[in-house]
Amino acid sequence: MGYKISGMGIYLPPRIEYSKETGLKINKDEKWIIKKTGVYERRVSDIDVDKMGAIAAEKALLNNETPDLIINASGVPKQSIPDTSVFFQKALKLEGVPCFSIHATCLSFLVALRNAISLIDTDAYNRILIISADRGTLGRNFNEPESASLLGDGAASILIEKTNSQESILKYWKMHTWSSAANLTEVRGGGTRLHPQDIKTKPSDNLFTMDGPAIYKIARIKSYKMLLQTLKKNNLKKRDIDWIVPHQASGKAITAYHSIGGFKESKVVNVISKTGNCVAASLPMAFVTAVQDNRIRKGDLIYFTGTGAGLSMACCLFKY
Amino acid sequence: MGYKISGMGIYLPPRIEYSKETGLKINKDEKWIIKKTGVYERRVSDIDVDKMGAIAAEKALLNNETPDLIINASGVPKQSIPDTSVFFQKALKLEGVPCFSIHATCLSFLVALRNAISLIDTDAYNRILIISADRGTLGRNFNEPESASLLGDGAASILIEKTNSQESILKYWKMHTWSSAANLTEVRGGGTRLHPQDIKTKPSDNLFTMDGPAIYKIARIKSYKMLLQTLKKNNLKKRDIDWIVPHQASGKAITAYHSIGGFKESKVVNVISKTGNCVAASLPMAFVTAVQDNRIRKGDLIYFTGTGAGLSMACCLFKY
Repeated sequence: MGYKISGMGIYLPPRIEYSKETGLKINKDEKWIIKKTGVYERRVSDIDVDKMGAIAAEKALLNNETPDLIINASGVPKQSIPDTSVFFQKALKLEGVPCFSIHATCLSFLVALRNAISLIDTDAYNRILIISADRGTLGRNFNEPESASLLGDGAASILIEKTNSQESILKYWKMHTWSSAANLTEVRGGGTRLHPQDIKTKPSDNLFTMDGPAIYKIARIKSYKMLLQTLKKNNLKKRDIDWIVPHQASGKAITAYHSIGGFKESKVVNVISKTGNCVAASLPMAFVTAVQDNRIRKGDLIYFTGTGAGLSMACCLFKY
Repeated sequence: MGYKISGMGIYLPPRIEYSKETGLKINKDEKWIIKKTGVYERRVSDIDVDKMGAIAAEKALLNNETPDLIINASGVPKQSIPDTSVFFQKALKLEGVPCFSIHATCLSFLVALRNAISLIDTDAYNRILIISADRGTLGRNFNEPESASLLGDGAASILIEKTNSQESILKYWKMHTWSSAANLTEVRGGGTRLHPQDIKTKPSDNLFTMDGPAIYKIARIKSYKMLLQTLKKNNLKKRDIDWIVPHQASGKAITAYHSIGGFKESKVVNVISKTGNCVAASLPMAFVTAVQDNRIRKGDLIYFTGTGAGLSMACCLFKY
């Protein structure tokens, strides 16, 4: 018995915002943005996250049977209650299919994948649809030029299902959270701390704030340590890994895998220049892109990794 | 190999709001509230959800080793980003322990339990701390008397860990979501649909709204059908179930298990009269209460069940 990823899809909103245009909103020029973030263009969605995710999921479901579980794995919800999985189900006309959300900000997809595999392995579900859809451009704080120029909108989805023989393999999983760095990436509003009705809640509390350089400083060291431990524990060399698929946090965070990490540039999946950081959707968007352009092939060994607000860090070795 | 619940705790905020006092806020008398909701008193928290959950979790961790995973299983977060699990970790001083959130509104705890057991069974984690903490009184809409008088604040936590022999058993799990009824329980704000900054967002969009009678009408029939199917599929009779532990949705929803369902009143755990509906915390609060007062004992067969915004419904047969 095993499992495989049997469907996948992406939704890239049609409206492109080039960095020149973003620059006008944050009083910086295009070159500054590209140098700081690596983002040349990002998409801005005119439809909400549920519709975005459903378009990606419809592609993942092409030629496939109905999923028996839907997991929303996004960074920011459509509304507080119900959770976004319900609205994906509605948009997909999958009435009756159970659904819930997993939230670990930019790591939501990886955490959902880990949970989905455990659910399949224990016969709880057989065919799980995971959807990540984020509309970070709505939360941009134009007084914070670096994070505002990083964010983009996008969605991606995969279908993972039980198989009779072993196909894909999750060979290794590791996650850490360091709450001492919780304040480095925040949307402080939207919950009980700074409730929208609370007079103490400032407009900026409802927007995305991120201290990119501080996170990079921590993440560079911890990511590399996590990578080395993963290799050691699995008795692998760097050359045994076919693909690095990182969360698209920033241009610098991605290129670090070859500039510092010692991987060939061609092995590190990098889509950020054309998408920006799409929060939880970034990692599956990078993965699906590299499968669809025939770079990643069945049987390849992928190192999925990323950082998320928390500060959390996770990685997994996944034989596709 | 197996698992057991090795620790548990509750946090009940000290401040009691009796229904007489609630009545003044919604222009109804005490009797009306008690008749409609079954709630005589509810707690109102002066501390935020992270601190509430941490107090419950500290009790769950007494005499136990450090968890290797923390799952937040609440209805409404402390803030949009990071997810609340991070703030639980911070309050518990468990730096480094991985954490994430599961959101299925009032069913968050049950869904987290299902995921935790699959994670333990597949050796992903060994000792998982699940925390549900909700502060529904912050979201009360006093123009909606029934839902406003239902809500209360509370938190509960369990520690579930791997054992060398089989101890507890999740014998059966079932969940459904019907998004056609998504509008029956909502907090429409707090996300991308009606962003706090959006001028179209009305104050009431950030408050809890629920059409209790409409949900009850659907849930009564579907819950009973789910119960009968569970019994049939597990070749059980009603008398084989030692305890019904339902989400504390409303007095009527709980008493239906004996008034309509045919279970003895003493077998149905009912704490709503003293706590109100504490969203995701209600179900684990009811469970922990009945264990701590020596009603539920090791080896007892529990039927956990509930409805959640979605509209979702879930049940599980759990040998404690």
